Amino acid sequence: MKATIRSIGHARQIRAVFEPILPGLESVEEFFASECARALPMVREVAGYVLESGGKRLRPALVLLIAKMLEYEGERAVRYGAIVELIHTATLIHDDIIDQSDLRRGKPTANNTWNNQTCVLVGDWLYSRTMDLCLEFGDVEVMRKLTSATLQMTEGEILADQVRGQADITEKLYLDITRRKTAELFAAACSLPALFQPSTLHFTDLFMRYGRNLGLCFQLIDDLLDFTADRSELGKPVMADLRERRVTLPILLLRPRLAPAQREAIDNVISTGSFEACSEKEILSLVKTSGVLDEVRRRAAAYAEDAVACTRLMPEGRESEGLASAAHLLLERKR
Amino acid sequence: MKATIRSIGHARQIRAVFEPILPGLESVEEFFASECARALPMVREVAGYVLESGGKRLRPALVLLIAKMLEYEGERAVRYGAIVELIHTATLIHDDIIDQSDLRRGKPTANNTWNNQTCVLVGDWLYSRTMDLCLEFGDVEVMRKLTSATLQMTEGEILADQVRGQADITEKLYLDITRRKTAELFAAACSLPALFQPSTLHFTDLFMRYGRNLGLCFQLIDDLLDFTADRSELGKPVMADLRERRVTLPILLLRPRLAPAQREAIDNVISTGSFEACSEKEILSLVKTSGVLDEVRRRAAAYAEDAVACTRLMPEGRESEGLASAAHLLLERKR
Repeated sequence: MKATIRSIGHARQIRAVFEPILPGLESVEEFFASECARALPMVREVAGYVLESGGKRLRPALVLLIAKMLEYEGERAVRYGAIVELIHTATLIHDDIIDQSDLRRGKPTANNTWNNQTCVLVGDWLYSRTMDLCLEFGDVEVMRKLTSATLQMTEGEILADQVRGQADITEKLYLDITRRKTAELFAAACSLPALFQPSTLHFTDLFMRYGRNLGLCFQLIDDLLDFTADRSELGKPVMADLRERRVTLPILLLRPRLAPAQREAIDNVISTGSFEACSEKEILSLVKTSGVLDEVRRRAAAYAEDAVACTRLMPEGRESEGLASAAHLLLERKR
Repeated sequence: MKATIRSIGHARQIRAVFEPILPGLESVEEFFASECARALPMVREVAGYVLESGGKRLRPALVLLIAKMLEYEGERAVRYGAIVELIHTATLIHDDIIDQSDLRRGKPTANNTWNNQTCVLVGDWLYSRTMDLCLEFGDVEVMRKLTSATLQMTEGEILADQVRGQADITEKLYLDITRRKTAELFAAACSLPALFQPSTLHFTDLFMRYGRNLGLCFQLIDDLLDFTADRSELGKPVMADLRERRVTLPILLLRPRLAPAQREAIDNVISTGSFEACSEKEILSLVKTSGVLDEVRRRAAAYAEDAVACTRLMPEGRESEGLASAAHLLLERKR
């Protein structure tokens, strides 16, 4: 695989941010290739398929950029960048089973291409293999961060699965689920480079905070794009969350603004996953005219701003500017 | 849960072997209870159900007995005994999804009681939580053993899934799958106590070898009981392996002894999982008259003997005698 920072809509700016770490990203891809080559054929096939299906490699890019900022020059940056992406990949594979998803990034999901059984095993293998890879270095503190993030991702998915089909969840619960499912792995990824050298340990919490805010911003925009982007941009059906009977922030904010009959219709969509009571077009119109999309964007912007505030406390230079740009780019992304 | 060494058919002898570590086993049960109490409701429900469904607690018992033999008195024995059982539990939950099993230990499986999605998540949670628990101690070498065993279990399941329905696998492949799926976790469990103290590190490989042999003996007898025990003893249908289109040693040894037409009928059962071409009764009669059951028992006995030979190199005393008895008891068990 040729390494690229896959466009998230602002190719030129993205390139400027990540250009300094392109060689590292190439090494990450080489690492995936060598892992796949050594794995059992079934793992190679399924994991290779998901790894090559157009992930943006955001998490490894963050590890590499922060490692560079902290003047770390050993092999851990590439290794842990790859490990974080492998954990992310395992999560995607298992999540698509849970959600019974058919499409991701414009391609059939692994569970759709193979079957649930195979995907349970390949996900398990990836989780175990990442631990195995961490243990080669024996970095206990790094493993604590990654295991804690993995545990929280699973708990986030469990909580989300429990409230599936429920319309009246609290915003607090929605944010807790979002933090666990998305933001904690961003936080862990960003904090790892600070653990590579004793002299940078004091940065750990700052990078955690940066990563958590970036992850929350990322997911809020994701939830918003699920309504506003088109199918080809999303690589999956529009309103996939509603189809999977998941309530996200736009709907949470919308519900109290609706007349009772409209709210009932929306709640019916949430509980059934079908658009019989209220068409996609009607929902989109309600979402767009109600102002909730601006409200979601404002909240995402607040997280991006907190992320940018973190960068001001980091060592100055091209990398911290890059991390600030990254927050803005994620906020502005179109897909 | 009250701690017991659940009978495996020779209650009195088993009690004699494990009586010295009953307090430790009670602490293991208390640990499970406190873990379940702290977990998310869905985890508590599903994991609690599987943990209370009559597992024999063989793996924690081995950890505790060997820790006692090595005069280890810290908290690691109970903790890692529990962790090994939790890993085993996670594997059972995911394996029952893969095999689409309905019954285990005479009770509906978790995937049958809840659904596949829930069970994927609870299994994932257990795997991550065990790593989390290991990290509290920060014992890198212990984690290496457990992660390696977990990875090999997953690979064993992947290999087994790949040859599902295939009649002509080699004995070498069958044994490789069996070693990975069952024996490596026994090996890891038995080796852990040697890692608790620097003074006993030199015992690690010996306990690995004991555990691996015990695990192979255990699984060969399991494969045999799948033909000879009755449904109430097994807690699942007789010939469950064939129903799941899995070839085990009795069938591998039987096939070359059959006339072509009989072999074809058996192969049909293996490839379809249905007993249309050859009834359960006919298969049982072929297995019983062909002498393959004695052959399987002889092979299991050879593993048991190798395990016993290992015990002669261990510190002398009640515990090493107990480990020798354990090998004989597993060989003679009826369910």
